[in-house]
Amino acid sequence: MREVAIVGAGMTRFGELWNQSLRDMFVEAAAGALNDAGADRLDTIYVGCMSGGQFVGQEHLGPLMADHLGMNGVAAVHVESACASGGVALRQAFIDVASGMSDLVLAAGIEKMTDGADVTNVLATAADQELEVYHGVTFPGLYAMIARAHMQAYGTTEEDLAWVSVKNHRHGAMNEKAQFPGEVTLEQVMASSMVAEPLRLLHCSPVSDGAAAVLLCPLDQAGQYTDRPVKIVGSGLATSSLALAEREDPAFLDSVQLSAERAYKMAGVGPRDIQLAEVHDCFSIAEICCIEALGFVEKGKGGPAAKDGLTTIGGRIPVNTSGGLKSKGHPVGATGVAQTIEIFRQLRGEAGGRQVENARLGLAQNMGGSGASSVIHIFQGV
Amino acid sequence: MREVAIVGAGMTRFGELWNQSLRDMFVEAAAGALNDAGADRLDTIYVGCMSGGQFVGQEHLGPLMADHLGMNGVAAVHVESACASGGVALRQAFIDVASGMSDLVLAAGIEKMTDGADVTNVLATAADQELEVYHGVTFPGLYAMIARAHMQAYGTTEEDLAWVSVKNHRHGAMNEKAQFPGEVTLEQVMASSMVAEPLRLLHCSPVSDGAAAVLLCPLDQAGQYTDRPVKIVGSGLATSSLALAEREDPAFLDSVQLSAERAYKMAGVGPRDIQLAEVHDCFSIAEICCIEALGFVEKGKGGPAAKDGLTTIGGRIPVNTSGGLKSKGHPVGATGVAQTIEIFRQLRGEAGGRQVENARLGLAQNMGGSGASSVIHIFQGV
Repeated sequence: MREVAIVGAGMTRFGELWNQSLRDMFVEAAAGALNDAGADRLDTIYVGCMSGGQFVGQEHLGPLMADHLGMNGVAAVHVESACASGGVALRQAFIDVASGMSDLVLAAGIEKMTDGADVTNVLATAADQELEVYHGVTFPGLYAMIARAHMQAYGTTEEDLAWVSVKNHRHGAMNEKAQFPGEVTLEQVMASSMVAEPLRLLHCSPVSDGAAAVLLCPLDQAGQYTDRPVKIVGSGLATSSLALAEREDPAFLDSVQLSAERAYKMAGVGPRDIQLAEVHDCFSIAEICCIEALGFVEKGKGGPAAKDGLTTIGGRIPVNTSGGLKSKGHPVGATGVAQTIEIFRQLRGEAGGRQVENARLGLAQNMGGSGASSVIHIFQGV
Repeated sequence: MREVAIVGAGMTRFGELWNQSLRDMFVEAAAGALNDAGADRLDTIYVGCMSGGQFVGQEHLGPLMADHLGMNGVAAVHVESACASGGVALRQAFIDVASGMSDLVLAAGIEKMTDGADVTNVLATAADQELEVYHGVTFPGLYAMIARAHMQAYGTTEEDLAWVSVKNHRHGAMNEKAQFPGEVTLEQVMASSMVAEPLRLLHCSPVSDGAAAVLLCPLDQAGQYTDRPVKIVGSGLATSSLALAEREDPAFLDSVQLSAERAYKMAGVGPRDIQLAEVHDCFSIAEICCIEALGFVEKGKGGPAAKDGLTTIGGRIPVNTSGGLKSKGHPVGATGVAQTIEIFRQLRGEAGGRQVENARLGLAQNMGGSGASSVIHIFQGV
């Protein structure tokens, strides 16, 4: 396999982007990535999107996006793995360049969620229709069950959950692309409306529009585009059952652990080597479970990590320096690529007020459903 | 890039499979492919499906299918390119094995269209919502416009169109997996109901359920699974504008030509070397346009090919020996993989009454929308 680097990145602001259609957002992000690298051609495009069909009545996103970018003719493929679609797009781009099939590949993630679709029901199609959704459960309910199981097994508290949101909003306040860049206090989180007990409104990531894109090429060609490429040194993808009830331990995300093992093995590193990470905090409990499955803390010890400052900028392992899904926003198909951009900026020393000092090795973990798919990449500055 | 072979195949019957859900069909096809090769493990699964979300309310198909196959944990990705989703799944599997990332990869295609969805409107989401669908056009109308343009430019006749259906049903009558295995006469086609002038009911492929799967591995490991592997020697993917009106010549499928050029170049062969082909006859006019863009006949000369016997079994270049989409059925996400299985069986001499003698080099061409995406693979028996 050839060594692969990221040489450019672009993204829209995340939020309710009522004046931009799905294709408009893609073009803004993709052109941003191309301009960032000074590139004017592409071999292949991977577009991660959960459901253009259900959100805006548009499938066949590969050729549509290629055409609107002015790249009619290039190979272009839409990939989907629910909220992990962006991370999977990055993985397919990585494999494509590594194989020698393509030299210049765009990995993009897009989602348009605020155009009138019944968002909760569309998102529920990432859960098991026959075993879960038919019986009335949606994602806040599924993650509430994960939270309850974690609290029961390990004594995790509602305050632990709230601190994840406080910490991520503190980081996100320094991110000009974030949908909700304001800080929130512990009291505000604890007093926000109950959505699915014990998860309150300020434990939940928002409904968002947005797009993000990165440009990949073989490492030995990266010098044509930038003097600060970021290498992809590990990639891991793993699955678990869609239905939460079929898992041995609902409080543990086995797909995250397995995808991490695969990515660490490829990169030849372990969790202690990682200096910062973006993890999939669709709900605050998800960040707690993810940092355990990633090996940043022991199983069952994720609860107090945010409160104790472990995962804050300046802590041992800063998590979600971008603000995470909670503050930055969560246009589901775009999230995995936006996480990648945060690590890319950090490893190039371009993260401004939220810069992690001397960052050389970062990780992005992107998840679908209640953890049925997890895709992880490890990045190294050069 | 490593050399890649197909070592096993499995598929359901195509038709209205009311007693099988999407996951049931996948498992039948996937287990069939694994059993065919005597394999009991997998590294990665690619699932091609146009719209589980819109047809049956189910996204996140990668982990769902992996789990129901009993392969919980493996890497699994859903890819979409409208009716070319199956061909794209094969391409991603090919790249994955060629790269060295995975050794044993399943490429599957699935679609469940008869469970009550508004099929014409769901399929229309493969066209351009803003430039086409909003104004009322659906796929029979788009292909009718292509047919009209071809008739006007080259004198193609309604009888030419009808002969494509007659020929494909003649082939399909020998395929026990076909949805409509009966022969039809020229008179029956010409007298069938008008759908979108000049296209009649018997020019249109049907609405179908079905699944198909093939197993890929590096050529140098193929001996573990079969003594008759089939090599993938070329792969090409290309795009064009989603909106038909934006193309220079609506009677010519430029994405098919470009993807063919790429596949021929990789394989080091030309159209004259191909001994049989499956092409994307979603409507009879599509087969005519495709054999031109593939270089089997000159531009504008595709009309009489079926009538003249050129594309019949026994002719110079047999096309759609399986019965094609018209007779075999067209569960849209499954089609590209089912085409691959026909070539696989032919190159192994297992095609029974529809066997093409001494077939060593075959091609499968799978298309999305009105030709906005086209994916082509070239296969060689060993």
